[in-house]
Amino acid sequence: MTPQPERAQLIRGVAEAARRAARAVATASAATRRAAIAGIAAAIAAARADILAANARDRAAGEAAGLAPAMLDRLALDDGRIDALARAVREIAAQPELLGRVDRREERPNGLVVERVRIPLGVIAMIYEARPNVTIDAAALCLSSGNACILRGGREALESNRALIRAVETALAAAGLPREAVQLVAIPDREAIAELVALDDLIDLCIPRGGEGLIRFVAEHARVPVIKHYKGVCHVYVHASAELDAALRIAANAKTSRPGVCNAMETLLVDRAIAADLLPRLAAALPGVELRGCPETQRLVGGDRIRAASEDDWYAEYLALVLAVRVVGGLDEAIAHIQRYGSSHTESIVATDAAIAERFVREVDSSTVMINASTRFADGGELGLGAEIGISTTRLHAYGPMGAEGLTTTKFVVRGSGQIRT
Amino acid sequence: MTPQPERAQLIRGVAEAARRAARAVATASAATRRAAIAGIAAAIAAARADILAANARDRAAGEAAGLAPAMLDRLALDDGRIDALARAVREIAAQPELLGRVDRREERPNGLVVERVRIPLGVIAMIYEARPNVTIDAAALCLSSGNACILRGGREALESNRALIRAVETALAAAGLPREAVQLVAIPDREAIAELVALDDLIDLCIPRGGEGLIRFVAEHARVPVIKHYKGVCHVYVHASAELDAALRIAANAKTSRPGVCNAMETLLVDRAIAADLLPRLAAALPGVELRGCPETQRLVGGDRIRAASEDDWYAEYLALVLAVRVVGGLDEAIAHIQRYGSSHTESIVATDAAIAERFVREVDSSTVMINASTRFADGGELGLGAEIGISTTRLHAYGPMGAEGLTTTKFVVRGSGQIRT
Repeated sequence: MTPQPERAQLIRGVAEAARRAARAVATASAATRRAAIAGIAAAIAAARADILAANARDRAAGEAAGLAPAMLDRLALDDGRIDALARAVREIAAQPELLGRVDRREERPNGLVVERVRIPLGVIAMIYEARPNVTIDAAALCLSSGNACILRGGREALESNRALIRAVETALAAAGLPREAVQLVAIPDREAIAELVALDDLIDLCIPRGGEGLIRFVAEHARVPVIKHYKGVCHVYVHASAELDAALRIAANAKTSRPGVCNAMETLLVDRAIAADLLPRLAAALPGVELRGCPETQRLVGGDRIRAASEDDWYAEYLALVLAVRVVGGLDEAIAHIQRYGSSHTESIVATDAAIAERFVREVDSSTVMINASTRFADGGELGLGAEIGISTTRLHAYGPMGAEGLTTTKFVVRGSGQIRT
Repeated sequence: MTPQPERAQLIRGVAEAARRAARAVATASAATRRAAIAGIAAAIAAARADILAANARDRAAGEAAGLAPAMLDRLALDDGRIDALARAVREIAAQPELLGRVDRREERPNGLVVERVRIPLGVIAMIYEARPNVTIDAAALCLSSGNACILRGGREALESNRALIRAVETALAAAGLPREAVQLVAIPDREAIAELVALDDLIDLCIPRGGEGLIRFVAEHARVPVIKHYKGVCHVYVHASAELDAALRIAANAKTSRPGVCNAMETLLVDRAIAADLLPRLAAALPGVELRGCPETQRLVGGDRIRAASEDDWYAEYLALVLAVRVVGGLDEAIAHIQRYGSSHTESIVATDAAIAERFVREVDSSTVMINASTRFADGGELGLGAEIGISTTRLHAYGPMGAEGLTTTKFVVRGSGQIRT
């Protein structure tokens, strides 16, 4: 472990350099920032062999250290993932320019012209685990929104992140931007995170991504604003008016298409009126999924196919092929369940009754509410934001998936001709 | 002082009641919320005698306790201020409805229709001193944005706030909204604030308003998000191209029209090219204002009219008839001074050179930047937001004056026809 005073000094130095670089990025032209982002895509492709070799070293070390298979999967890069990474970066470079955009304009009765003009937040600290693609996504999104960033990836991805950051530095240099615009903090101990997120004079926003433990650690120690979600306990509610085929298709997609991610379904709520029809078919349609049900669900599914759900199951984010199932007596009971056990992430209703569906999206106050669609669409890319920097389940600044625009704010620009206040 | 466990229980109870009431306010119709707000204006007018009597008791106690004159002034209510209060509330009731507003709508290639729909934040905690009008402004703004609020006013205004909150409760009852939608926390000790702003499971946002000491106390103890500004060190920069008459008029208005507020000018920066013309006229135009200048300013103003500014003067928020003055060598020096000593509140340039003025508003990253206008316009009402709930000098969620819309956020509403993610 790095000695404390030396480490604190090093981290403050990184943040001070980021603050200076942020000014350079904010005042650089859109063309310069776009050139840097496009350069990242090119540099990743050029450094493919280096990146794959570094990633292989991380994976070997991870396997030796006994990392969980899900963690090793998130850590892994291959040709396909590197192609996807470069493609995402090129898409970010192609997004419309945000900085300087006038969101509102009003002439006041006294002749003052008041505008709200979009500007960067400043310095963004990303704290994340395993997935090396966050390094590149965050670098590209911060540059496109005019911010500098400090990236503190997990130690398990250190070699991969170092190889990726070299590609970023190449692109920054070619575009004439300071290399401190995107810095990787390679200090492995967790106390380094605590020191970083306390620097509220230098850092404007911290976005932690990873397990609930990491996110709670950041929230505990942060003096800078934090945008986060602890977990995604996403619900699908099948109303009595639902088309059962659609309900089964959506449930299967929401649970099984990628069970380890935050927008996967964890609890299915089913109206009593259709439970006897739907639940046996559900059990058959989700063969590899362990079911945990309320007594009524247990009775309708029957036998060894299902076990009893405990109170804890209603709060659980399994991130695995496990599903909690509960029979409810209609919309109000479904909403009450979601209010009590949900995580404000994503909930979907399956229904043909439009009035019921509209009540659901109006009264459920989660960050994403859906009608007749899989919860797996709760993703910045799928919802039209371009790449995603994170998902927020708290309401300040951003609620739900957050893209490049979430990394900006507006200032007031007031143009007058000598007005004074009387 | 209330014993700690009892007080903590009481405060948690207040916040839990606010959370329940928030749901009632959020789901109430626009007509109901508007009726409650209009009812507040009527109830204030009806209770005028009670409110003035309560305020007289507060002022007598404040005088006996030796409160500063500025504090006593902020505390005071009279017929004119009560009229203004009721008028502000009626203006809030007349603002366009925010909740349910669709800010964006996009149909995705797969047919999903994605909307961003405006919703309330939830429970707002206001922590403030002296000014009893905050009680009414906050109640009306929170109702108009669909939020519940917890109001912790200062002990010096307790009787006034109690009289005002009775008017609010009358209006809530008449509109059929729960009285817990607007609660006054009458516990005087500061530890109660610390306990309140730690309740991040129940409170969505805290807005402290008052002296820097109070705001730092809240920021230290908060676990909920805080929107704040510590101080307003506002600058006026007079460029060489300025009309000197306009510069003098703006400087006089920015400094003297209400020196005790955060948008008053604290430092004047003057280009060297016009300093010899402007500064003697400035000294004559601001007869009651104490000047503290850089050596060049001292020489140009001369004599006993000015004293030397220390380094501390450039950071000072005087909130009094004192002005720091510095001669600079052009736009870049002015911007560098503001970057170093400013508080991100409000800065204004006086110039006829449009290219220079535009560079100033582009490169100065304060929350409000102005051309040829008094800094005193940095106010939610003056900039077209309607009444103001606070001013933010940090960039997350709101930057600059914040009105009712700042008390809302958006959720994603996604309407499909059975889409699943492939």
